[in-house]
Amino acid sequence: MSKLPHIGTTIFTVMSQMATECNAINLSQGFPNFPVDKQLTDIVARLATQNVHQYAPMSGYPPLLEKISNLTQQSYQRVVNPKEDILITAGATEGIFATIQALVNANEEVIILDPSYDCYEAPILLCNAKPIRISLNDDYTPNWEKINEVANEKTKLIITNNPHNPTGKTWTESDFIQLEKLADSFPNLIVLSDEVYEYITFEQPHISIHHRPKLWNRSITVSSFGKSFHITGWKIGYVIAPEHLMKEIKKVHQFLVFSVNSISQIAISEYLDIVDVYSLGNFYQQKRDFFRNLLKETKLQLLPCEGTYFQVASYAGISNEDDLTFTKRLVTEFGVAAIPISIFYANEKDAKCIRFCFAKDDSTLIEAAERLMKL
Amino acid sequence: MSKLPHIGTTIFTVMSQMATECNAINLSQGFPNFPVDKQLTDIVARLATQNVHQYAPMSGYPPLLEKISNLTQQSYQRVVNPKEDILITAGATEGIFATIQALVNANEEVIILDPSYDCYEAPILLCNAKPIRISLNDDYTPNWEKINEVANEKTKLIITNNPHNPTGKTWTESDFIQLEKLADSFPNLIVLSDEVYEYITFEQPHISIHHRPKLWNRSITVSSFGKSFHITGWKIGYVIAPEHLMKEIKKVHQFLVFSVNSISQIAISEYLDIVDVYSLGNFYQQKRDFFRNLLKETKLQLLPCEGTYFQVASYAGISNEDDLTFTKRLVTEFGVAAIPISIFYANEKDAKCIRFCFAKDDSTLIEAAERLMKL
Ligand SMILES: CSCCC(=O)C(=O)O
Ligand SMILES: CSCCC(=O)C(=O)O
Repeated sequence: MSKLPHIGTTIFTVMSQMATECNAINLSQGFPNFPVDKQLTDIVARLATQNVHQYAPMSGYPPLLEKISNLTQQSYQRVVNPKEDILITAGATEGIFATIQALVNANEEVIILDPSYDCYEAPILLCNAKPIRISLNDDYTPNWEKINEVANEKTKLIITNNPHNPTGKTWTESDFIQLEKLADSFPNLIVLSDEVYEYITFEQPHISIHHRPKLWNRSITVSSFGKSFHITGWKIGYVIAPEHLMKEIKKVHQFLVFSVNSISQIAISEYLDIVDVYSLGNFYQQKRDFFRNLLKETKLQLLPCEGTYFQVASYAGISNEDDLTFTKRLVTEFGVAAIPISIFYANEKDAKCIRFCFAKDDSTLIEAAERLMKL
Repeated sequence: MSKLPHIGTTIFTVMSQMATECNAINLSQGFPNFPVDKQLTDIVARLATQNVHQYAPMSGYPPLLEKISNLTQQSYQRVVNPKEDILITAGATEGIFATIQALVNANEEVIILDPSYDCYEAPILLCNAKPIRISLNDDYTPNWEKINEVANEKTKLIITNNPHNPTGKTWTESDFIQLEKLADSFPNLIVLSDEVYEYITFEQPHISIHHRPKLWNRSITVSSFGKSFHITGWKIGYVIAPEHLMKEIKKVHQFLVFSVNSISQIAISEYLDIVDVYSLGNFYQQKRDFFRNLLKETKLQLLPCEGTYFQVASYAGISNEDDLTFTKRLVTEFGVAAIPISIFYANEKDAKCIRFCFAKDDSTLIEAAERLMKL
């Protein structure tokens, strides 16, 4: 008897494997295919021969904690205590898992907004708690009416994801006002804010939970160096939470991984002195525009993309297949791997939309677009 | 309300912090203080500038899985399928956490043998399951009478640790016969075998669960490259389990960390072609003998040490303090950090014993012994 009977292999593994098998261009799983900044890899090469190979401290390498605190202040004018409020995690995923395990009790409820990233549900189920999955509106804004309707005394957590994967939607001021109202009504509600794409926003600057002092005492943000520095394979992220919540998250983290890869922490800590994270939005905005321009020549319909490195496109004008079938045909017949959006809905709502990752070098995007022209 | 109200900061963090504060020699937390093999760090330095920085596959880097399969066959004559039966984890700790979360249901029981490593209990409690903590005999052999007494239909897992941390005890053939008998009586019982020190045994060769074909279908082994290659900071270990159990463990792993640090996996995979893991026992046996000889000049009484890089010593002839008080005095007044053994017992059984880590260069061990002479 499985504890997770309905959970199969994550779509990212499935599609990346299909891409390899079909020798396709892989725009499915989200990762950059261009080289990492040489300044960062040079740091790693230099550190490798130094004394950096034993356990990092449980919460993280202290200079890295300091620099995250500084970055948070610089980016959001929020002061967080490096020792008490920050935790380095084995990727944002571990941060999310540890947070849910630390805070959610059996029979409590967690609100998730669909289409939702696929790592939220399993840890909730493992707590014997109940994921309450509410679909976003058709324009991918949160459906506050529905959220207010389902929230109740048993709602322990609401998981927000901004900028949003897979849709590239970002939250507005008014969404935060709604969230604060919700929080006012339910004094025990905690917000888990997945902001791994915080530095990848386009026309509008990112609005973070860190901008909302009213929520600080009951919110947890999760971020990812993998996303910000094009190093998804390093598996290094961080969590920021007020001490009373962080205390519980650390209890889980210390017996979940104990600590995180030491050389990665030291390297990122050094790199933070020289990198300009604020250039990331511009970098990906150019990629987005480049890719969108290419796709305009295809029969796909492009949805707006306000942040992240994902572009959603509708194929409704091309085919009536469900999106999983269409995606599989796309990879086998056209040699381009994408992600079907229905997979991120509890009810597998099929809007005939698929997601492309545009964190790729220009030649890859050009070649992909050429293949998609044949659709 | 904490989900883990009785769990504080792990003793390893507490003692390492005290060691730093007191500028003491740190023989508490288990990690080597000598340089890592230059062949391995050279591999890392070379890889750093290559295309190795994006997500590794969820189960692990395929060549590394292959090599672990070969190593398992070479070491134990057991054939395991690299694709189905092996999982690379963010340290053995993540492997243990994922296994427990994947397999243990609410209200089930898990047998743990005290003194037990401190990461076993929290994941059991987070499953709303019950840790059943049975003390080892006074000579640190398993108390089979007591184990048989407590085992019942609700016992889902027994966690074994061989070679044993903190005591350095290893299992005998007769222990495995007893374990097999227990398994015969309880067809649903699963064995989680923590063998992170598998290559660190002394007079006797290591007897592994891998030597017991009768148990293969219901046992999970956890191992650690951190321990075998002196790279505790890398946080990279692996789990071997039959496919029907591994399937469930992977479901948790994929949403717990998704995948493990890519450059580390590739580096270890290359290193496995050139390293001789079988020399490790001899390497640490020399350290053990060197350290034991030094300690003979002190008033401490040495217990046997058959494996691991830990030496237990009794201070009963020196002081009547409980072992935590004694350990704290040792670090503050004598400048040597150790680990109290009572911390690993549910009932905090105080046998007036402390644990030293001897994975240190000779000069560190000499200086520590000189300080301990003053006791
Ligand atoms: C963990 S693999 C998936 C990467 C990702 O964040 C995505 O593709 O959405
Ligand atoms: C995870 S820190 C503890 C290291 C260790 O295995 C030990 O000291 O026993």
